[in-house]
Amino acid sequence: MTTPTQHRLCMIPGPVEFDADVLNAMATPATSHVDPFFIEKFGSAIELLRKVFFAPTGQPFVVAGSGTLTWDATAANLVENGDNVLVINTGIFGDWFAECIGVYGGVVDAVRAPFGSRPSLAQIEAALTSKHYKLVTVTHVDTSSGVLNNIEDICVLVKRVSPNTLIALDGVCSVGAEVIKQEEWGIDVVMTGSQKALGVPPGLAVMVVSKRAVEVALNRKSPPTTYFASFKKWLPIMQKYEARQASYFATPPVQLILALQVSLEQLVAAQGSLEHRFAQHRAASAKVKDTLESWGLQLVPVNRACAANTLTAVYYPAGVAPAEFLGKVGLKGVVLAGGLHPEHATKYFRIGHMNVSVVNDSLLNHLETTLDAIKAALQECGHKI
Amino acid sequence: MTTPTQHRLCMIPGPVEFDADVLNAMATPATSHVDPFFIEKFGSAIELLRKVFFAPTGQPFVVAGSGTLTWDATAANLVENGDNVLVINTGIFGDWFAECIGVYGGVVDAVRAPFGSRPSLAQIEAALTSKHYKLVTVTHVDTSSGVLNNIEDICVLVKRVSPNTLIALDGVCSVGAEVIKQEEWGIDVVMTGSQKALGVPPGLAVMVVSKRAVEVALNRKSPPTTYFASFKKWLPIMQKYEARQASYFATPPVQLILALQVSLEQLVAAQGSLEHRFAQHRAASAKVKDTLESWGLQLVPVNRACAANTLTAVYYPAGVAPAEFLGKVGLKGVVLAGGLHPEHATKYFRIGHMNVSVVNDSLLNHLETTLDAIKAALQECGHKI
Repeated sequence: MTTPTQHRLCMIPGPVEFDADVLNAMATPATSHVDPFFIEKFGSAIELLRKVFFAPTGQPFVVAGSGTLTWDATAANLVENGDNVLVINTGIFGDWFAECIGVYGGVVDAVRAPFGSRPSLAQIEAALTSKHYKLVTVTHVDTSSGVLNNIEDICVLVKRVSPNTLIALDGVCSVGAEVIKQEEWGIDVVMTGSQKALGVPPGLAVMVVSKRAVEVALNRKSPPTTYFASFKKWLPIMQKYEARQASYFATPPVQLILALQVSLEQLVAAQGSLEHRFAQHRAASAKVKDTLESWGLQLVPVNRACAANTLTAVYYPAGVAPAEFLGKVGLKGVVLAGGLHPEHATKYFRIGHMNVSVVNDSLLNHLETTLDAIKAALQECGHKI
Repeated sequence: MTTPTQHRLCMIPGPVEFDADVLNAMATPATSHVDPFFIEKFGSAIELLRKVFFAPTGQPFVVAGSGTLTWDATAANLVENGDNVLVINTGIFGDWFAECIGVYGGVVDAVRAPFGSRPSLAQIEAALTSKHYKLVTVTHVDTSSGVLNNIEDICVLVKRVSPNTLIALDGVCSVGAEVIKQEEWGIDVVMTGSQKALGVPPGLAVMVVSKRAVEVALNRKSPPTTYFASFKKWLPIMQKYEARQASYFATPPVQLILALQVSLEQLVAAQGSLEHRFAQHRAASAKVKDTLESWGLQLVPVNRACAANTLTAVYYPAGVAPAEFLGKVGLKGVVLAGGLHPEHATKYFRIGHMNVSVVNDSLLNHLETTLDAIKAALQECGHKI
């Protein structure tokens, strides 16, 4: 047995459900990493990433890894020993990114907010004016809390108060679904993994880096303490593939990159525009959240303005036991995720709504199926709806 | 178009041709990284790696990445600033591994040999007795030169002369095809990628680490300068999955790990034993090399004892132009690789013979097809056979 006998809908905040063409690309027969067919597709994927990230002059990097590896790449290439870094923290992914930055010598301060909310612009401004930060990092959607940060406002603030500070956006649970205008907003690094709103199986670290940040990385005082995640190593590789030429540093994950290219084409083509796709994610999110609230459930984010459109984190109603509830939903053919934040993990669960489950919902009916399963499971657990 | 219209046999030294069941696993529908189905398969893959590496008490690590990432992991976790490291160099992968070790603070000496040969045991012994090395690294098969190192002899030597020195084996182009008895020979780290003799698409960094080396990593004086490749971060994750429990550090590449599990089961089951598989690779290699020599071609390795069984690196005969020859072979439906060593790249080409192309050769006829294409292309290029 190589696959489960019955597929259950994977409605967690990544990996998400995949389009059939994306899965077909995953099963592409053996192809050399310097085969003209692959070179063309890899080059195309690099070009398409610029469109998806709204970064016409940015430098995409696509490497075997996960979203976490993009933290290492950002920290290792942009932070030197003793550099000040400000982390805008909205959950455990902020905690972990801060730890990663520390590994590469960064001296980290954090602005925080209670679980379910986000730091205010005033808090961030106070931090930014207290000392000079080389880098500020912000998690767009913290997958542990479902909290959405106001990236455009934060970028405006940083540009006004500390224009030399580099801005790095952890877009792991947002790129392709939440609005990001990398170049217009002046973001230096946008990071993501393949398995969220990009709709590709896990295994790729994906990022787009501004010209300014590439310069910073190439003109460091000390060499970065990474080999595999070195911008300097990968830069010529990405440039060569984009120019449709063979190149080699480490063997690229051919099948995953072919799958990425298929998905990126869908993203830019889908019903005319990425803007439409963003709107679809907002509508799907509102539908899920409205429905859950109508059943008397309380969202983890303290208000809708700071609630992600890619997932819904919601508290169990009183009397509903986590394992029993998630088990019952699973028996109805839908997989949800429990809580992830260590202090609150047993109090809430999470529903992912990204990519095909959103944009092809009229065809696939994933959202309705998921909500039906949740409703029935809640009722079986004794919650009155 | 998501796949090339006509598949050409991928007979390069990785990626290799893949078994249909392995490719099917690559297209497994969306599956949570904490789904019981995936947990079972990941746990099984970890157990199977111990068998394939002949390391009953070793600690396997499987992480999204490539073989190159295993260099970072080895260097970052085992080498501290100023530690002496000896690199046994048989090609450019030795050069690059040395560079990687330097990134993590290692002070590297190398023993070298002319292109196509390997350092003698006397050379290695002289180096090992000149100073104390914390780590010695050796490339089992240097994919750039096709040179095979005598790992068992080197291990016996290191154990005799410098028993406290850790031994790290780059097995990227050997694990699963060349004989490696990790624990019996006392190798502390064996590294590989997924796309060579393990027969899985590229995208996985795979390694098995001895108890002794895990202890060294966990008891470092200074923390490792890597977050994503930290043994300390991944150790509990691997232990949990092996105990069939959910765990999370970074999202594992679900589909690639499912494909790995399928391939590892084939490796341990195939016709009774891994020993048989190793013998099949020796026989296939001899067949390819004998045939090429019978046509008047000269191998890159200076003798058969130092020639890899996973690939054949062979000089173009006089008068045969590289691009013309490789193009003609390609038109006959077979993809070969050019040379990789910068000083000699235009003088030789490489044929990979691993995994299904070897063990299922009687069914698939990959070797004969490849040799036929080479013969015809050589003749068309004016070489008399």
